[in-house]
Amino acid sequence: MNTENEVREIVSRYTRAADWRDGEALSQLFAADAVVEIHYRGPDGMELLGTLSGGTQIAGAMSTAMAPHPPLGWSHHTTYDPLVSVDGDEASIDTQFITFDVVGTRKPEGGWPAGTFGAQGTIKPIESGYYRFTLHRTDSAWRIHYLDVIHDIPYVF
Amino acid sequence: MNTENEVREIVSRYTRAADWRDGEALSQLFAADAVVEIHYRGPDGMELLGTLSGGTQIAGAMSTAMAPHPPLGWSHHTTYDPLVSVDGDEASIDTQFITFDVVGTRKPEGGWPAGTFGAQGTIKPIESGYYRFTLHRTDSAWRIHYLDVIHDIPYVF
Amino acid sequence: MNTENEVREIVSRYTRAADWRDGEALSQLFAADAVVEIHYRGPDGMELLGTLSGGTQIAGAMSTAMAPHPPLGWSHHTTYDPLVSVDGDEASIDTQFITFDVVGTRKPEGGWPAGTFGAQGTIKPIESGYYRFTLHRTDSAWRIHYLDVIHDIPYVF
Repeated sequence: MNTENEVREIVSRYTRAADWRDGEALSQLFAADAVVEIHYRGPDGMELLGTLSGGTQIAGAMSTAMAPHPPLGWSHHTTYDPLVSVDGDEASIDTQFITFDVVGTRKPEGGWPAGTFGAQGTIKPIESGYYRFTLHRTDSAWRIHYLDVIHDIPYVF
Repeated sequence: MNTENEVREIVSRYTRAADWRDGEALSQLFAADAVVEIHYRGPDGMELLGTLSGGTQIAGAMSTAMAPHPPLGWSHHTTYDPLVSVDGDEASIDTQFITFDVVGTRKPEGGWPAGTFGAQGTIKPIESGYYRFTLHRTDSAWRIHYLDVIHDIPYVF
Repeated sequence: MNTENEVREIVSRYTRAADWRDGEALSQLFAADAVVEIHYRGPDGMELLGTLSGGTQIAGAMSTAMAPHPPLGWSHHTTYDPLVSVDGDEASIDTQFITFDVVGTRKPEGGWPAGTFGAQGTIKPIESGYYRFTLHRTDSAWRIHYLDVIHDIPYVF
């Protein structure tokens, strides 16, 4: 696999770990001393919402900052239009992101009404912004050293 | 084109064929003995919704499982964050997907009201989940041998 | 970076310039004699909505055809499922696109109400269709020579 595609796939794995709320899979994508910053870019400039330091804290945030999926619920962290830069064993990737909240409709006790067709539930974009990743390659594996999550809209913890 | 990008483009062509309801274009992406399974991954685990076997049945499903676009209607089958694996002449690709339903507003008899600006209609995410493709390369062309469409929300045929 | 990825990144830069309403950055992606056509593909076929010729006119359209972001507002021009073709110093790329309109909720004077959690605002898909780019490479830099923006739903200027 060429190097830019390797770097892009780290982002793909990040989105999977986030949607599965899999702190263990997430922490394996990050270096042990990695830092995640979460910002809101608003009318008064960049506002720091929180900082996570180290793989354990990053994995732990999965169960605190991210609410567990409700029954019949799921999410898709999706990314778009990457800009990748690779320089030896250092790389950066900037993507757009949108997070979709997914909630299925529960099948009625008596079955679906006559005429029901297609997917039953709601899929709603709830977050958007930019991910900016810095990665290092060690022993031929890319790991995230720094991630800046920049939200477009106010985010309340 | 490098091999991972070749495999990714098969998915791009799949989305185009689905949006154009083009059974002929779709069937050319699949091997003659290909199988498509459609699942709903719900609270009780993976539920098989349907199976299509062979190019003819897959192409035919385009006009049965997928409703034709209504007047002024369209769709976008969109994919995200691929994970590609290539091993010689075999490959797999896992993507997130969201299907958007698009319905344009019909221009009023007397023309658009004063002050109307921008795109007129609604664009709505109606399906989401994961596509998991297995592909084989024969005579330098990649073809889909197996596709698992895994819906996040209940799907009623 | 391999050539298809170089071409894809021009599209990534196009989406960034559009979201930042950055006419200068946008014009640098286009050749001096580039042409942009904007179409609506409707029930009566392809309808030409407008043509922009040359970098200056293309950059200028950013401040006329695209409304400035309102307070707390942003957008994401997102692309999907590219089909890239490269032939020496000429290339084309076809993508799906969706434009999302983003509007943040203003923090109340007295602070967020108790129990507020997560992102505060709305993210809404407002445009969709296809981008078809033709690019030429000169002095090792790819530039857009022609862009066809094909809207799925009626667009009123």
